[in-house]
Amino acid sequence: MNKGLFITFEGADGSGKTTQLNLIKNFLEEKGFEVVVTREPGALDLGKKIREILLHYDGVVADRCELFLFLADRAQHVETFIKPNIEQGKIVLCDRHTDSTVAYQGYGRGQDVKLLKDLNKLAVNNLTPDLTLLFDVSTEVAQQRVGNEKDRMEAIGLEFHKKVRNGYLELQKENPERIKLINANNSIETVFEDTKNIIINLIEEK
Amino acid sequence: MNKGLFITFEGADGSGKTTQLNLIKNFLEEKGFEVVVTREPGALDLGKKIREILLHYDGVVADRCELFLFLADRAQHVETFIKPNIEQGKIVLCDRHTDSTVAYQGYGRGQDVKLLKDLNKLAVNNLTPDLTLLFDVSTEVAQQRVGNEKDRMEAIGLEFHKKVRNGYLELQKENPERIKLINANNSIETVFEDTKNIIINLIEEK
Repeated sequence: MNKGLFITFEGADGSGKTTQLNLIKNFLEEKGFEVVVTREPGALDLGKKIREILLHYDGVVADRCELFLFLADRAQHVETFIKPNIEQGKIVLCDRHTDSTVAYQGYGRGQDVKLLKDLNKLAVNNLTPDLTLLFDVSTEVAQQRVGNEKDRMEAIGLEFHKKVRNGYLELQKENPERIKLINANNSIETVFEDTKNIIINLIEEK
Repeated sequence: MNKGLFITFEGADGSGKTTQLNLIKNFLEEKGFEVVVTREPGALDLGKKIREILLHYDGVVADRCELFLFLADRAQHVETFIKPNIEQGKIVLCDRHTDSTVAYQGYGRGQDVKLLKDLNKLAVNNLTPDLTLLFDVSTEVAQQRVGNEKDRMEAIGLEFHKKVRNGYLELQKENPERIKLINANNSIETVFEDTKNIIINLIEEK
């Protein structure tokens, strides 16, 4: 493996994707791989400022404004962080990426899905994940897990989150090679086994 | 005139466009019009945060990131500020708008002009200025006027600014109805006379 790998972790808040990302990081490091963990939005200094605007601005943020802020964060993240790390042979694990935009802004909020896909392409400048793990969980279970921790994104309601879930499942059907579905209603241990097996397969293929 | 007017002021730093905008504001207010002055990027609270990122971030800002930040600012500005003021019958004078993006990012930096126009359309959600005043000044004169006040945008060099100027002139040729060319090498008084006459014509037509 000369070049590294780019693996994205997708799913609802409460799907356990971040927990699994950290378990996979430890697992891969024990196997001797160099691993970099990151996330969208807001991984970089610049991204943090954008994330702050998105999550804590007290005025009304226009839908299109929010979309462009996400894309700005992504463009900067891909260009100055993800690509250089992949070039150096590292495995980059990213918590949310392009599919989040399509699932949340597109399927969730009803923005134009085709347009969002085009804008994503522009933001990532030809980078596609080698693998995307979709942690699929029932909306009820996800909400229970998230509990009372609510920010602007989480306060939107059950109906919205169901649309997002369906959007993710739609994307998985369209990209069965790239996006692997994981049943995240299961226990952390079971989900970790499933996740690990998919990643081992990917590494063996390369 | 039931609905207001949207007039944008375009041109290089040092073209005198901001000076003229303020003279026109006073002139129109004396005539009894309600006038609102604004600018891009960074007119709103949210826009100010974005502007800060753009002008003072000490890392490298990827071209695409910068572009999306400008568009985010514009989308928010149009939706929450410009459109409501026009609806209330006011004359909105805006210092820089869509043509700046095409002139600077497109012609200046060599990004895809067609794509920038499409992204602008998306950001403004069907709002087109009733009038755009292009203050055209030779790059040498503009640089002399700007003097030593340099921020990231102005420190880029003469060659860049010549490309931007040509870009603006190109846009004017493509949109002769909307964009009116003003020779901004002239004195403040002469430029003001020219500007005033164009705006009086517009108001009389409406």
